[in-house]
Amino acid sequence: MRATVIHAPHDIRVQEVPDPTIQQPTDVVLRVLRACICGSDLWAYRGESARQPGQRIGHEFLGIVEEAGSGVAGFAVGDLVVAPFVWSDGTCEYCAEGLMTSCPQGGFWGSVGSDGGQGEAVRVPFADGTLVKLPAAAASDDRLLTALLALSDVLGTGHHAAVGAGVRPGSTVAVVGDGAVGLCGVMAAKRLGAERIIALGRHQVRTDIARRFGATDVVAERGEAAVAAVRELTGGAGAHAVIEAVGTEQSMRTAVEITRDGGSIGYVGVPHGSGTGLDLGVMFDRNIALRGGVAPVRAYIPELLPDVLSGTIDPSPVFDLTIGLDEVPAGYRAMDERTALKVLIKP
Amino acid sequence: MRATVIHAPHDIRVQEVPDPTIQQPTDVVLRVLRACICGSDLWAYRGESARQPGQRIGHEFLGIVEEAGSGVAGFAVGDLVVAPFVWSDGTCEYCAEGLMTSCPQGGFWGSVGSDGGQGEAVRVPFADGTLVKLPAAAASDDRLLTALLALSDVLGTGHHAAVGAGVRPGSTVAVVGDGAVGLCGVMAAKRLGAERIIALGRHQVRTDIARRFGATDVVAERGEAAVAAVRELTGGAGAHAVIEAVGTEQSMRTAVEITRDGGSIGYVGVPHGSGTGLDLGVMFDRNIALRGGVAPVRAYIPELLPDVLSGTIDPSPVFDLTIGLDEVPAGYRAMDERTALKVLIKP
Repeated sequence: MRATVIHAPHDIRVQEVPDPTIQQPTDVVLRVLRACICGSDLWAYRGESARQPGQRIGHEFLGIVEEAGSGVAGFAVGDLVVAPFVWSDGTCEYCAEGLMTSCPQGGFWGSVGSDGGQGEAVRVPFADGTLVKLPAAAASDDRLLTALLALSDVLGTGHHAAVGAGVRPGSTVAVVGDGAVGLCGVMAAKRLGAERIIALGRHQVRTDIARRFGATDVVAERGEAAVAAVRELTGGAGAHAVIEAVGTEQSMRTAVEITRDGGSIGYVGVPHGSGTGLDLGVMFDRNIALRGGVAPVRAYIPELLPDVLSGTIDPSPVFDLTIGLDEVPAGYRAMDERTALKVLIKP
Repeated sequence: MRATVIHAPHDIRVQEVPDPTIQQPTDVVLRVLRACICGSDLWAYRGESARQPGQRIGHEFLGIVEEAGSGVAGFAVGDLVVAPFVWSDGTCEYCAEGLMTSCPQGGFWGSVGSDGGQGEAVRVPFADGTLVKLPAAAASDDRLLTALLALSDVLGTGHHAAVGAGVRPGSTVAVVGDGAVGLCGVMAAKRLGAERIIALGRHQVRTDIARRFGATDVVAERGEAAVAAVRELTGGAGAHAVIEAVGTEQSMRTAVEITRDGGSIGYVGVPHGSGTGLDLGVMFDRNIALRGGVAPVRAYIPELLPDVLSGTIDPSPVFDLTIGLDEVPAGYRAMDERTALKVLIKP
């Protein structure tokens, strides 16, 4: 089959690789219908996250079960399924409590020896613990299929940030980061009942989506000016719930500064940089909490799926460029240069 | 009257100062029956927290209302009352939500221009918002009076840490710090239903109190050895709820390393040092939350008071040295040299 392989920073190729096969009775082989490129893939692309030459890449996908191991109980050939961005056994203590990202048998698509999502097919370990079935009819609904793909990462990650930030009905929320995760954070905050949602972002294409997703205010300033603007919008106090969806020291610093005393930062931006950007003295004096991390999106799919199926929420607008598998290298360039927000791949 | 004054690092004196008087109708003047020295006072004593020469010191006290301003509704002359370690107006948005430490009209005893607790009397601003009435009979019960004094800071602070750490019935809790706050954290965790409480500490006098307060295990090792010991006691996973009651980079590092994936650190140690001790990458991968800060103890007194009055909990053993007001300088030395755990003052 053909799949995306990262050979070195800025050297992404689509090439022939061995077809996936059932290796364990709990595996399925999945034919990919939709995949996409994640902002976090860019860290590997730019060489800021180490990869071994030849590793696969891509961790967001949905597709059709093509073959199922003898130990797979929940899925049959032909089922339409979505995969969260890590696999997990579904039986351990962590999986039982909804923290599938800490499953000792879990793993990340594209890690050494595993398939990545940006390819024609994927071997899925622990299929019963990992995959979630989708209605077969969705396979013929292009818009819906795209929206469902967001369940594999960005929508669940935005939801995780909103939960970590403590969004409740009536909350005032601020969102740092205008990427797909930040936008899904806006959507998740709205879904959880936030009354006011302040999106920080300078790119009108993105902030327009933020408004569609529920943002009531947009702050285009950066740094200290952004902090001042959010404080002015909140009577000087800051937002009770702040979503941090970037992962740099500067974004975390901004998040701390715009959080109201007693509030929480829900952080889902993968941390980068040598420092944390956290001023613990300020957080201490103002009782600001920090909650979040890598999102256990598998745990959230059952809650979010019905709302996506019913159209109550539609994250599909975060995908603003659609390409075929051969164009994946160009897709990375587009996201790297920020000419695309999030690239959808139809293998 | 006589009160404790800090002139310079290591220069603490008990001297004549002006008698407190009613300055605002919402003030009361309180005659101090019991006060004490806090671990955080040592930061000023050691010169690590700046003080202006001549500032008062001491922020934990209880006593008798000696004079009440015309606007004070809730207290009359002769009432026995306890003061939390900050005053607050009791009417603002923050006070209403139980975050009295963020009250815009609030302040800290001993700040410039205010009385400190380590003296014969204190002018209490916003008495109705600040003070809590105690049963008059407690004034003649020496042990109980000492236990009630813990409501002014250490017990409520330990409770705040336990709440921040997310202690629930059945929790496994680890407590970093064997000072009075850490020990009260043990007590608070037990009170909230923790099943297993691992106290980290090397001083047997202190760990014996930890065991009296509910610790089921004691880890005497430090640094990496302590981390290994806690992990061994918890099947390799760490504790779901970790109380950080020191405030150094090393103690925070230890706290992160002994927290189970998906768990929380409740931090109440006043942060010291240039860094945070937080490895945000580790916290991200393992979904470790950080919650806490300066404890709004005023909010917790109504919940904790009945249990202290009934004897369900008795924090009085944290006070292991009793002195008169004249001996306060010696009391600081004793705490600085760790020959005393927490010094009780009977003015």
